[in-house]
Amino acid sequence: MPSIAYFGPRGTFSEQAARVHAGADDTLEPMRTVPAALAAVRAGEADLACVPVENSVEGAVSATMDALAVDEPLVAVAEVVLPVRFSVLVRPNLTADRVRTVASHPHALAQVQGWLAANLPDAAQTAANSTAAAAVGVLDGSWDAAVTAPVAATHYPLDVLATGIADVEGAVTRFLLLRHPGTLPGPTGSDRTSIVVTAAAERTGVLAELLTELALRGINLSRIESRPLKGRLGQYRFYLDFDGHVHEQRVGDALAALHRRCQHVRFLGSYPRAEPSPTSTAAAAGNTDADYAAAGEWLAAVRNGTGG
Amino acid sequence: MPSIAYFGPRGTFSEQAARVHAGADDTLEPMRTVPAALAAVRAGEADLACVPVENSVEGAVSATMDALAVDEPLVAVAEVVLPVRFSVLVRPNLTADRVRTVASHPHALAQVQGWLAANLPDAAQTAANSTAAAAVGVLDGSWDAAVTAPVAATHYPLDVLATGIADVEGAVTRFLLLRHPGTLPGPTGSDRTSIVVTAAAERTGVLAELLTELALRGINLSRIESRPLKGRLGQYRFYLDFDGHVHEQRVGDALAALHRRCQHVRFLGSYPRAEPSPTSTAAAAGNTDADYAAAGEWLAAVRNGTGG
Repeated sequence: MPSIAYFGPRGTFSEQAARVHAGADDTLEPMRTVPAALAAVRAGEADLACVPVENSVEGAVSATMDALAVDEPLVAVAEVVLPVRFSVLVRPNLTADRVRTVASHPHALAQVQGWLAANLPDAAQTAANSTAAAAVGVLDGSWDAAVTAPVAATHYPLDVLATGIADVEGAVTRFLLLRHPGTLPGPTGSDRTSIVVTAAAERTGVLAELLTELALRGINLSRIESRPLKGRLGQYRFYLDFDGHVHEQRVGDALAALHRRCQHVRFLGSYPRAEPSPTSTAAAAGNTDADYAAAGEWLAAVRNGTGG
Repeated sequence: MPSIAYFGPRGTFSEQAARVHAGADDTLEPMRTVPAALAAVRAGEADLACVPVENSVEGAVSATMDALAVDEPLVAVAEVVLPVRFSVLVRPNLTADRVRTVASHPHALAQVQGWLAANLPDAAQTAANSTAAAAVGVLDGSWDAAVTAPVAATHYPLDVLATGIADVEGAVTRFLLLRHPGTLPGPTGSDRTSIVVTAAAERTGVLAELLTELALRGINLSRIESRPLKGRLGQYRFYLDFDGHVHEQRVGDALAALHRRCQHVRFLGSYPRAEPSPTSTAAAAGNTDADYAAAGEWLAAVRNGTGG
């Protein structure tokens, strides 16, 4: 019965993501900020933290990634991908024509401007600290309506005026579930690995070299982001997500190569992909574990004079 | 006397960035959103748009980048880098011990939690749509204090309770000034070029190839970010910033190579760097314009049978 810490209050997209992963007996703990959710795991007050890492509609992803790159290491054991679709909650029995004010996180409001213009054109828009905080504000009478994650409707005694709202179809937001380093989830054949590498920016082409180490081993990159290191002009952190599991030879071999080339490599986990890869994630010819084993045996034979 | 559209209301970091670039006679126009600032230039209602492209404390950078990648092209003619340092504005003569509520954009509040804990520990924190909207809320009595960009103090009749506030030293935020495509700013010897490329993700190593095209020509990458294309699983956009000007042979040669390799390349501008490069931005040996000219003459001679 692990406890999962997430960015609260109750009813955020972070909670919705945590519930995708949680079992019936797991307890979910809302935290005041994303870094506080990570800190709870580091301090042993929670078993897992569920935090947004891509295209967040609440909270800054860059701050989350910075918090994962420093302090005590945490590793991801699962990812959750959610569609960016909102619900609009109102006080019981309030009809759309009586909604004068609507609140949400500014990033959420920005993503439903089309729907608001068509459906609540006269409502004044107000910022809230999170989508769930907007629902709390409807409860306490601060405003009439809140743009929230669908899960918020299960926590607060409010009516659902509309649901499934998205100005842009197909947008998704992505979360990781992180815990203390320990036994890794086993390979499933469709896994993803996340790392943070620190490299000197003054060496032209360093990133091309790192990505070539992955490409040479048939490893497909699924995300990359650079962040300048604060106070260290000329040093960069790169966040990389790629297909494969660290227990595969090709991935282990690539990570060892990055470790030789970089000032620092932090392993952020190997975990099952939430969605199957658009193409096969199987290692290309020459990059399977069997290929590595055969090549190792051949090399050993060359070295001990029994083969060639 | 160009007009510059920026994310308003008056007093945001976007306005502060626009003022770094603006002349005394330029007019600055606050817009309701970042995409609206870009739309004003596209519609001919403003000459320039000043928008956040990195580490924004107001508004989502990913939405800005998406807006630059589609619709009518715009090109950057300048960049502005600002330190992330806030001011705290209060109603005239209000002392710190009487501040009960403090407001700002949630991303700004997140970056001054240390200062607030030490200086306004009892103040309730409230979200606003922007740092400047928080100042407007102090004026109209919604709350007692606002965490804002320094420039907000010049617009609103409020007292500056504190200034230069930053929990983390050395953080910066970056803006681009964009206009209709036309004559480009000339090379200065310390320039940056921005592009968006679209590539098929199923080809393992495509990004390594693109970055190698830059590295082979001695071009230093300063920023990279990937964005999945909505509704097109398996296609990615990459945002790249690198040293050099499109009028340099090495940069032009690299861009032409990317155009051969990618489904789409959008040029977002070549403009003077706001800060000098940590290392020289000069083309490395073999990559100067003179090197390109000499190599071209030699090749022409080989082809017409007069050299070798």
